[in-house]
Amino acid sequence: MANIGDRLKKRGVMVETSIVQIKDVILKNPIMIEGLPGVGHVGKLVAEHIVEELGADKIIEIYSSYFPPQVLVMSDGTVELAKNEVYACSSGKYDLLILVGDYQSTTNVGHYELTRIYLDIAQMYGVKRIYTLGGYGVGHLVEKPRVLGAVNNVKLVDEMKRYGVSFEEDEPGGGIIGASGLLLGMGEQKGIDAVCIMGETSGYLVDPRSAQAVLRSLSQALGMEIDMGALEDRAKEMEKIIARLREMEQAPSISPIEEDLSYIG
Amino acid sequence: MANIGDRLKKRGVMVETSIVQIKDVILKNPIMIEGLPGVGHVGKLVAEHIVEELGADKIIEIYSSYFPPQVLVMSDGTVELAKNEVYACSSGKYDLLILVGDYQSTTNVGHYELTRIYLDIAQMYGVKRIYTLGGYGVGHLVEKPRVLGAVNNVKLVDEMKRYGVSFEEDEPGGGIIGASGLLLGMGEQKGIDAVCIMGETSGYLVDPRSAQAVLRSLSQALGMEIDMGALEDRAKEMEKIIARLREMEQAPSISPIEEDLSYIG
Amino acid sequence: MANIGDRLKKRGVMVETSIVQIKDVILKNPIMIEGLPGVGHVGKLVAEHIVEELGADKIIEIYSSYFPPQVLVMSDGTVELAKNEVYACSSGKYDLLILVGDYQSTTNVGHYELTRIYLDIAQMYGVKRIYTLGGYGVGHLVEKPRVLGAVNNVKLVDEMKRYGVSFEEDEPGGGIIGASGLLLGMGEQKGIDAVCIMGETSGYLVDPRSAQAVLRSLSQALGMEIDMGALEDRAKEMEKIIARLREMEQAPSISPIEEDLSYIG
Amino acid sequence: MANIGDRLKKRGVMVETSIVQIKDVILKNPIMIEGLPGVGHVGKLVAEHIVEELGADKIIEIYSSYFPPQVLVMSDGTVELAKNEVYACSSGKYDLLILVGDYQSTTNVGHYELTRIYLDIAQMYGVKRIYTLGGYGVGHLVEKPRVLGAVNNVKLVDEMKRYGVSFEEDEPGGGIIGASGLLLGMGEQKGIDAVCIMGETSGYLVDPRSAQAVLRSLSQALGMEIDMGALEDRAKEMEKIIARLREMEQAPSISPIEEDLSYIG
Repeated sequence: MANIGDRLKKRGVMVETSIVQIKDVILKNPIMIEGLPGVGHVGKLVAEHIVEELGADKIIEIYSSYFPPQVLVMSDGTVELAKNEVYACSSGKYDLLILVGDYQSTTNVGHYELTRIYLDIAQMYGVKRIYTLGGYGVGHLVEKPRVLGAVNNVKLVDEMKRYGVSFEEDEPGGGIIGASGLLLGMGEQKGIDAVCIMGETSGYLVDPRSAQAVLRSLSQALGMEIDMGALEDRAKEMEKIIARLREMEQAPSISPIEEDLSYIG
Repeated sequence: MANIGDRLKKRGVMVETSIVQIKDVILKNPIMIEGLPGVGHVGKLVAEHIVEELGADKIIEIYSSYFPPQVLVMSDGTVELAKNEVYACSSGKYDLLILVGDYQSTTNVGHYELTRIYLDIAQMYGVKRIYTLGGYGVGHLVEKPRVLGAVNNVKLVDEMKRYGVSFEEDEPGGGIIGASGLLLGMGEQKGIDAVCIMGETSGYLVDPRSAQAVLRSLSQALGMEIDMGALEDRAKEMEKIIARLREMEQAPSISPIEEDLSYIG
Repeated sequence: MANIGDRLKKRGVMVETSIVQIKDVILKNPIMIEGLPGVGHVGKLVAEHIVEELGADKIIEIYSSYFPPQVLVMSDGTVELAKNEVYACSSGKYDLLILVGDYQSTTNVGHYELTRIYLDIAQMYGVKRIYTLGGYGVGHLVEKPRVLGAVNNVKLVDEMKRYGVSFEEDEPGGGIIGASGLLLGMGEQKGIDAVCIMGETSGYLVDPRSAQAVLRSLSQALGMEIDMGALEDRAKEMEKIIARLREMEQAPSISPIEEDLSYIG
Repeated sequence: MANIGDRLKKRGVMVETSIVQIKDVILKNPIMIEGLPGVGHVGKLVAEHIVEELGADKIIEIYSSYFPPQVLVMSDGTVELAKNEVYACSSGKYDLLILVGDYQSTTNVGHYELTRIYLDIAQMYGVKRIYTLGGYGVGHLVEKPRVLGAVNNVKLVDEMKRYGVSFEEDEPGGGIIGASGLLLGMGEQKGIDAVCIMGETSGYLVDPRSAQAVLRSLSQALGMEIDMGALEDRAKEMEKIIARLREMEQAPSISPIEEDLSYIG
């Protein structure tokens, strides 16, 4: 064995994000769609549904010290390190770059840095428009979820209204937190048009009904048909769960969705 | 499409603050005024009022990973990335540089770094004096708010007393946290005189009455008349709200002001 | 006395990890075993037991700003700075590198950075396989603890099953946090096979019974006999404590194990 | 006005610690004494008492982004930026370097970095021994506080026992957190002998009686007489307060000492 080399002896700060290219693709007129975890997992449901329905290919994996220090155990016993993924598919007028994953940054600074990386990837592929997808939590169950929008270029407002996206003067009241918001704000600084499409949702449960509403607007915006069967099935399942919860008269006290993280070390 | 370049493959830590110059101005005898968010939003109310009344021009925007990872949605559907802004106007004896914004740093280290940047901007324009504006929370409603002061140069005490600013031996008891305090402490190290003017306030509510008291002292210090109509209107509105709260006998349990931040992601 | 040198006047960020080589050893077919603190201290009990039983030598100490800023006071009045340690021993088919310590990182970023360092050490010695040891908390006392596994290479599943390690489709539900998980996920990226062996445990108490179960599987995997007397003694002791707690009818409210950290400064 | 220079446009991470030399002194056989805030403010009371009694001169100020982002307002209306200070005096056998201040680091990483700086200062002056001073919180009022010790070199145990310092096998149970502990652990790595002298204290109140006990041992160790009048006065005052609290039968619920920090910003 060799002595411990100088490289090992002392190490400074090493916050690190690695971008791993899985596949080399050529895209024309690419549009980026972001569906990372958030309120009601609405954006995640929509983006993962699109990846599934369109049979998109994974082209990039992003690993980062900003994600939780964690692996997930898959059903075959193997693990997956916390990561984000970018999928691509060629379909209709536009090619799509779809950003999905089970994690967002665990720190504020990390949110900014990871968004910078998402935008670098968008620029590398020549993306001219980004759709970020999310939920808008209203604190009560919603029968017919509205679809709200926010844009980083005022010219997009009228176009988005044509696809059933509403712009309300005082909604969302506070702001948009995380990648869905920063991609608009920081995208503007790089000259990339971006729209956030938000499905109204309780904020208490995973909400495939709200995801359907978002997908309806998004597919119009993309000018492509996307089958909603799988989301419809999940919505019906969730509605059965809600009905059962109501029967048990526990509906008022159901708590927010949380990942089931057993600590093992 | 090109392969992912080396630049993208690995990224180290990237806490970043960008200073964007919006307008190029020449200032004579400039004085800096800071009114970032704090207790009772007193400083923010005063600084934004001055920007409005004097028709100051925005000259600098400051973006930082130290701010919350968030955009605000405006009434026209567009978003604004978390930022601080510097406005300038020429008026009377002094030109003014006014630092405003909806955010302060989310971390301790960030408070120091952002204050360093504010001071660099001050030095670049040749600022010889800084007024930081804030609220002094006393925990109960205040009819006639006093105006308290703190300075980074003992010579300023007598001058400030002439403008109705009191210096009490044991107030504020603890200290001054955030930009309003650090601009004094770190300004001293750079040889820039600085005064913190604090309006007495409950700490529970946005307090335009306290803001008026601070503005009265500040405008004397600046030797300029500033119309208080708009603040008076807001103060009367707030007093109606307080009266209504008292009627509802809920006054004792009113909770601290909080931004309405819906989480959307 | 000299003036304060330039080196001292200003200092930037200094997150630092030092790897100190205590002893120079040559290992053949080395396997790394990780037993840092975690649920029920199962991994730590097993790893420390192996160090003890096999008379392993300390070869490396790791100090890091990511550990708590703390020293422990030993029974002779001397202190030990927070650290991790690597022990080595030659025994049977494989030589062992055993990673132990009283601490894991206090931050998410630190978990990633320290795991990178553990893997650098593994690579330096030519380690081809890593066993990480931990507890799987189920929230209730367990009579006959099962041993669960997770791997970073699907080929290892069948081999591990031969040693009594189970792979369940939905356990562990969430994931594996800290070094035990990251060594698998990040080890895969470096091409090092790794297995996490988890002993079922309540999560409320240090659990030598669960440690025995893990050790049984591990020693089969290593093809070596390891005496379990000491763990058996500790298990019996703990069972007496539990029996006493049950008698006192306090069993339901016993709180999680915590280090007794008196703050002294 | 000039355009915003490149230096200003983008800024990376800037955690910064500045060491400002106030006075240039020559010390012979210097010993460092640390008395930063901690349990019962015992160490701080002792160190500040020594500075006062021996008329020590301030020679260094330490400013750091790791301290709270805060200024204190003095009785004359001026502010003091959060800092640590080093005082020096020539007296008897040894010269003293005394480290005092109202703050320790607000982060774990900062504790390590600041201790590295304290040790750099110690090395610069040729310090051969460090005494760190603190309180050992036992959770109840103590009539006759014991003085406990910890060392980073086992040879020091017998010497310290001669000065009334006890070494108990299981006290302090957990460890020593912050500068008082790290100076021992990290000092050992630099070959500087260090002792932590801890006065037994409730942990609920500032404790000048415990400070007296620590000072008694310390002054023996230093071979110098230090008048205790001022500490005796403070101890009597505190005993009156405790007596009054007992009378009010509120003694059991008195809460831990906290700085009165009004937030002003």
